[in-house]
Amino acid sequence: MSGDVVFDFARAERIGLSEAVFCAGKTPQQIAAILQSASQRAGLLLTRLDAEKFAALSGELKAATEWCPLSQTAFFGPVPPVSLAGNVAIVAAGTSDAPAAREAERTLRHAGVEASVFIDVGVAGLWRLMDRIEEIRRFPVVVAVAGMDAALASVLGGLYSGSLICVPTSVGYGAAEQGRTALNAMLASCAPGLLVTNIDNGYGAACAALRMLGVMNLR
Amino acid sequence: MSGDVVFDFARAERIGLSEAVFCAGKTPQQIAAILQSASQRAGLLLTRLDAEKFAALSGELKAATEWCPLSQTAFFGPVPPVSLAGNVAIVAAGTSDAPAAREAERTLRHAGVEASVFIDVGVAGLWRLMDRIEEIRRFPVVVAVAGMDAALASVLGGLYSGSLICVPTSVGYGAAEQGRTALNAMLASCAPGLLVTNIDNGYGAACAALRMLGVMNLR
Amino acid sequence: MSGDVVFDFARAERIGLSEAVFCAGKTPQQIAAILQSASQRAGLLLTRLDAEKFAALSGELKAATEWCPLSQTAFFGPVPPVSLAGNVAIVAAGTSDAPAAREAERTLRHAGVEASVFIDVGVAGLWRLMDRIEEIRRFPVVVAVAGMDAALASVLGGLYSGSLICVPTSVGYGAAEQGRTALNAMLASCAPGLLVTNIDNGYGAACAALRMLGVMNLR
Amino acid sequence: MSGDVVFDFARAERIGLSEAVFCAGKTPQQIAAILQSASQRAGLLLTRLDAEKFAALSGELKAATEWCPLSQTAFFGPVPPVSLAGNVAIVAAGTSDAPAAREAERTLRHAGVEASVFIDVGVAGLWRLMDRIEEIRRFPVVVAVAGMDAALASVLGGLYSGSLICVPTSVGYGAAEQGRTALNAMLASCAPGLLVTNIDNGYGAACAALRMLGVMNLR
Amino acid sequence: MSGDVVFDFARAERIGLSEAVFCAGKTPQQIAAILQSASQRAGLLLTRLDAEKFAALSGELKAATEWCPLSQTAFFGPVPPVSLAGNVAIVAAGTSDAPAAREAERTLRHAGVEASVFIDVGVAGLWRLMDRIEEIRRFPVVVAVAGMDAALASVLGGLYSGSLICVPTSVGYGAAEQGRTALNAMLASCAPGLLVTNIDNGYGAACAALRMLGVMNLR
Amino acid sequence: MSGDVVFDFARAERIGLSEAVFCAGKTPQQIAAILQSASQRAGLLLTRLDAEKFAALSGELKAATEWCPLSQTAFFGPVPPVSLAGNVAIVAAGTSDAPAAREAERTLRHAGVEASVFIDVGVAGLWRLMDRIEEIRRFPVVVAVAGMDAALASVLGGLYSGSLICVPTSVGYGAAEQGRTALNAMLASCAPGLLVTNIDNGYGAACAALRMLGVMNLR
Amino acid sequence: MSGDVVFDFARAERIGLSEAVFCAGKTPQQIAAILQSASQRAGLLLTRLDAEKFAALSGELKAATEWCPLSQTAFFGPVPPVSLAGNVAIVAAGTSDAPAAREAERTLRHAGVEASVFIDVGVAGLWRLMDRIEEIRRFPVVVAVAGMDAALASVLGGLYSGSLICVPTSVGYGAAEQGRTALNAMLASCAPGLLVTNIDNGYGAACAALRMLGVMNLR
Amino acid sequence: MSGDVVFDFARAERIGLSEAVFCAGKTPQQIAAILQSASQRAGLLLTRLDAEKFAALSGELKAATEWCPLSQTAFFGPVPPVSLAGNVAIVAAGTSDAPAAREAERTLRHAGVEASVFIDVGVAGLWRLMDRIEEIRRFPVVVAVAGMDAALASVLGGLYSGSLICVPTSVGYGAAEQGRTALNAMLASCAPGLLVTNIDNGYGAACAALRMLGVMNLR
Repeated sequence: MSGDVVFDFARAERIGLSEAVFCAGKTPQQIAAILQSASQRAGLLLTRLDAEKFAALSGELKAATEWCPLSQTAFFGPVPPVSLAGNVAIVAAGTSDAPAAREAERTLRHAGVEASVFIDVGVAGLWRLMDRIEEIRRFPVVVAVAGMDAALASVLGGLYSGSLICVPTSVGYGAAEQGRTALNAMLASCAPGLLVTNIDNGYGAACAALRMLGVMNLR
Repeated sequence: MSGDVVFDFARAERIGLSEAVFCAGKTPQQIAAILQSASQRAGLLLTRLDAEKFAALSGELKAATEWCPLSQTAFFGPVPPVSLAGNVAIVAAGTSDAPAAREAERTLRHAGVEASVFIDVGVAGLWRLMDRIEEIRRFPVVVAVAGMDAALASVLGGLYSGSLICVPTSVGYGAAEQGRTALNAMLASCAPGLLVTNIDNGYGAACAALRMLGVMNLR
Repeated sequence: MSGDVVFDFARAERIGLSEAVFCAGKTPQQIAAILQSASQRAGLLLTRLDAEKFAALSGELKAATEWCPLSQTAFFGPVPPVSLAGNVAIVAAGTSDAPAAREAERTLRHAGVEASVFIDVGVAGLWRLMDRIEEIRRFPVVVAVAGMDAALASVLGGLYSGSLICVPTSVGYGAAEQGRTALNAMLASCAPGLLVTNIDNGYGAACAALRMLGVMNLR
Repeated sequence: MSGDVVFDFARAERIGLSEAVFCAGKTPQQIAAILQSASQRAGLLLTRLDAEKFAALSGELKAATEWCPLSQTAFFGPVPPVSLAGNVAIVAAGTSDAPAAREAERTLRHAGVEASVFIDVGVAGLWRLMDRIEEIRRFPVVVAVAGMDAALASVLGGLYSGSLICVPTSVGYGAAEQGRTALNAMLASCAPGLLVTNIDNGYGAACAALRMLGVMNLR
Repeated sequence: MSGDVVFDFARAERIGLSEAVFCAGKTPQQIAAILQSASQRAGLLLTRLDAEKFAALSGELKAATEWCPLSQTAFFGPVPPVSLAGNVAIVAAGTSDAPAAREAERTLRHAGVEASVFIDVGVAGLWRLMDRIEEIRRFPVVVAVAGMDAALASVLGGLYSGSLICVPTSVGYGAAEQGRTALNAMLASCAPGLLVTNIDNGYGAACAALRMLGVMNLR
Repeated sequence: MSGDVVFDFARAERIGLSEAVFCAGKTPQQIAAILQSASQRAGLLLTRLDAEKFAALSGELKAATEWCPLSQTAFFGPVPPVSLAGNVAIVAAGTSDAPAAREAERTLRHAGVEASVFIDVGVAGLWRLMDRIEEIRRFPVVVAVAGMDAALASVLGGLYSGSLICVPTSVGYGAAEQGRTALNAMLASCAPGLLVTNIDNGYGAACAALRMLGVMNLR
Repeated sequence: MSGDVVFDFARAERIGLSEAVFCAGKTPQQIAAILQSASQRAGLLLTRLDAEKFAALSGELKAATEWCPLSQTAFFGPVPPVSLAGNVAIVAAGTSDAPAAREAERTLRHAGVEASVFIDVGVAGLWRLMDRIEEIRRFPVVVAVAGMDAALASVLGGLYSGSLICVPTSVGYGAAEQGRTALNAMLASCAPGLLVTNIDNGYGAACAALRMLGVMNLR
Repeated sequence: MSGDVVFDFARAERIGLSEAVFCAGKTPQQIAAILQSASQRAGLLLTRLDAEKFAALSGELKAATEWCPLSQTAFFGPVPPVSLAGNVAIVAAGTSDAPAAREAERTLRHAGVEASVFIDVGVAGLWRLMDRIEEIRRFPVVVAVAGMDAALASVLGGLYSGSLICVPTSVGYGAAEQGRTALNAMLASCAPGLLVTNIDNGYGAACAALRMLGVMNLR
């Protein structure tokens, strides 16, 4: 089964987003083959690269790869300098939501966009959000990351007028249903105009933010 | 199948709650038979008595029955005077949550307890709750009624220190999943110590409040 | 239960979106009461107002209400003139998806935004989409409406670089699971950066588009 | 991502419950950072701290932490003396339900409340419950812990008149659906006025009991 | 599509149970055709024949059909005399469970077996079951019918040593999930050796009882 | 929203199947508009056209439409003569499965293919299938239609060597889960090489059969 | 939490079944404590005792325990001699169903009942069942064990007239849904009078068989 | 439990497909026993044989077994020469779908059929499919393998006229629901005549293709 990988090099031109490698369903051998076939000059983003798979890479590939254990993302090859800051805020309800928040932050960073991150502003202690809300309101795009009941999204949706991208996380147990409850609560929010990604999909939220920045001529 | 109904007359003595008649799964004939076999003196609460079933009762039974179309509850026979007020607040997110809120209010009233009701304080417009929160905090027991994302429960749980009984409602569509999302969000709330009833179960929330008032020696 | 309705008049100032009345869980009496308490000058949007509930309004209220049977939306009071066109495209897979598409169109129109609508461009006949794709690409914001397998969203996501708001619909039967399959397929799309609303939620998609236009200083 | 943790120190004053650290979604590094930033004087409760994560703590942190393997809870720093006993009974259906029962017991103990625990009183052998029921009836608050069919909750609900907090557990297999069946059975109980927490949520049940004790002026 | 019906006349000889006509998915025309093609002498049992379909039959067919509105069953043609009594008890938790209980009773009666029926012995009022348990214990086969939490099945399973056939019913709302919770609770019961039928399947429970009576040489 | 309908006239040339009109999600007005815009000469198949919608058509459109109430399909305009017979057998477990079986038969007939239909050969009376199995084996393509447990599909899959297209139906109640159980049982069959369509999708099964006949050069 | 275990010694007298220890939710320490507190003379059955937990027992306890790795059951203490044979047949569809079949066989053996076992008679190769059906018909009680589509149960239900206890197994993947499909297919079987246990519950099937043998005066 | 395995040697004659050994639910001991009892001359296909189970085979059995780690299939004994090529194309959306695609390829190869494989033609980069579509159209049978949203199936269904067998895969996370979303999307596809197998069931797709080739007289 040689020649399995068909890179979508035209993607960046077509939709403004580079192709990324989703590693969850791939063997270490497949990942290594992809990296070897990709030109290091292009700069490739890898997502869902867990510790075991990263460890299985050869020393050479490891050296060319900047890996982040919290978000399980990696930069292979060069990363562009920051070209844009102050446009995207990432707001997370609790420390446990950090992996998804960080995946969004890293994906934006790989595209040259620096996001501002606000962690631990869940609404069970409403003052934590209220303390930061004026600051948050200055960003045209906000990525809200929350698990369990995801109440942060609804409260934020009633206080903030810009584009609100919601990332449900799989944080919680039992009735949290691996993030399904947070996902449904965001979709059925009493606040109008919230948009939602897949569970734990920080990467997708970042891509959506990049699409928005693109149409705002900020990229 | 005569003699199908076995009244649990000892219930009030045993657990402090009178038996109520849940009409949803019963034919009009069965309901009429139950009313006829019950002594009017006792005073019976009926729940889930819809307009069609109420209309099917004989004129005599109708006359002895005080029916509320919004909550689909009915009082059959005498209702005790109000013996207690100022201990239970019922807080509902929106107008669509009124049926369940009203079912709780009527069940409490049937036991002689007058509740205070706060409707339309959902957190999409946070100021609506904040305007009333000091007033709400004075009640030892609060029944919170909300559908869709049920974010009201979590916000209230972080602002209020008393006993918080949460009633998810079937308000919403699609990802609201007939109230399952509100139920799960309340169960998985980021605020600690929330307690939850079945979907749309205003009756059960009132019974739980009555249990609490009982142990507080307020009944 | 008088005084149940607490209008969130400050919403427009706070988040740039006027309050709308979701009629699905309300009785005709509650809807009439809301309309009577609202000032006609403000101009109110009603969603999920079905034929039966519209018919139950008094002649006076009916006369002040412009009702659309396809989308089950109504404009109560004055509607602002069109202030913006050419920024939002609504793209629907089939005729059966028209109600949700139309709900989005009407919500935008109520805010002064005129959308362009493309119906029946589902990917089972790929040429129908390809014929219009160049035209669609000119819009900064696209609302994609599709039920069943929702494959339109993924194909569009690979061809279009702007902001893509996806509305799953409940069109289909059996494994379509009342729109749950379209919802999940959009969330799990192989194309990056798609954002999703609740099932059949044309209203929410329009609100999200309005948030985007706001940050683009187009509103 | 420094400064991720924002302690909600005002929580105890606001809602009468100290903040606890939910460790399930956190890395050992994050947990260590939280412990180090917390003052030992305050006394912190940790939940869902499994053996592996506890083992990963430094010797110093371990020494300051009293860990319970059965309930996977830990006390970090000083624990207040017992200030209240004889008000909360914890009743569990079987030995397999002990972890959740013990989590409730430990959470109460961390707040100075000593609970009485009754294990192995499931209704398949009804005499086991009947032998203890008079004793159980003396407590104003009962926490009922049960998995599988959770029939204990309904039987207890018909025999006991005080406040009944039900904790479904994930004990069982197949149709027990990881505790979902016990949860639903408790929510749909034929006994009136039962209140329910998330699956395996002994911590939440204890917090709810503390709220009740608070309004009873017992704390 | 003539000749659609292929009667399984040999069924009674093969497995000791006559064929019955399940009417739920059939048109009135199909039902009439089946009755006309069946010999009246044989005696046919019809299940799930609702009022509308019964009303649609011709006067002649109606006259030959003994219809029971509560259980929606009908006897077409002659019914054998009672050949056996005192071997099957049908025990139902509440009045709302009567339709399924009655379907079982009628199916047994159509096979010449007279069952004893005990209604309204749900465990929320435990004394109601305890009052009858000695009587119930005398039957070799018990059919237990219950909805909602189905706790009756578990309590009975711990008190009764004979063959226990459990019929979950769709009584209840919300978390009762149309009988799925009762079904799962019976399957996951803490009492050993319970056997379960489909939701509301009184017919199937009766057939299972007939199988048992057959191997006991009582038929 | 004029011009909503974009006919995929090229479909027949592209994939050998004419476009059909799925009426379930469409208003009578939309259906009438589609029929009027379609040329009668082409000959159009309509599926899921229920009695109410058919009745709402104008007299002229009704006259041009051959409607089948059992399968809720209609032929609008001319139907081609039968060009092929003896190649497709439709085998249904019971009379209640007839609507889906008939939808398949009608769809094939609209394409000029005459199918042979075998109804009431469910495996609860195995002899009914065994009586016909030699006859069935002569067809290169078999469509198996079954609801509830769908055991017919597995037994047939072990006895028949040709192409086996399985249509689960929504026949049954409770654990049949509106056809989901039949669908899953067919997908998880112990017999190898079964292929499955959506629930009640006789139309899709017929289209798949037409694809097969096409590659066999029989069309 | 000493004294957690309350043995239900009276169970055998009350319902004719000895108590068994379900080990899945218990720690090795809890299991050891139970064994030590139980008298070896009584003879205890343990279920779901996996290799790891068995290995964790002390040498002494191991020596007193006869463990079966396939069914993960153990006999602790003496086992009664066989008192009954030829009354129960266990029929399993495939080799993968052997663990549940063997759990049933061992539970029966622990009660002195010897069952006959028929493995690999799944209906995908119908002749395998037909070859044995005459032999199977001689048993008054049959336990049918099958996963995936569970078609064996329906076919057997149409060929065998005695008591049929169905055990769905978790064999399969994807649409087999961990045994949920087999469970539902058995519950929704087209054959009448099948009775069903929880998924993989060979123990429960054996207990049900013992109840039947009891009422047949065979025990 | 000796003699558990009953080979269905007649299967090939009866339905044209040899029996394969599904290893997922079997112990290494059971697999070894099956291989030893099978004649090596026949040539046996094993599926779901993971690395651990393969490693547990004896050296002799390993030597006789050609194992493929990607698809977890093995050929035991001789494999027939290729007798047929150019009739089946296997088309997979991405590299992560390769295991199921390869299982199909190996199953076909074991029956003497050589398939052509097209990997990484997912529709997020539509040009990748369009580049190969003319080539794909030449095959009478296509197996389409895709996970997540499975949009490849619908697009292919609109472009290709032959027999289309769709294999959903468990690739993805969150809303992909372990392949359930891909499965449902394929079943509810807007393109007509798609046929679907169980999730990840490359083996079943190959068997279905072999059935088709059989009726085309190509085998």
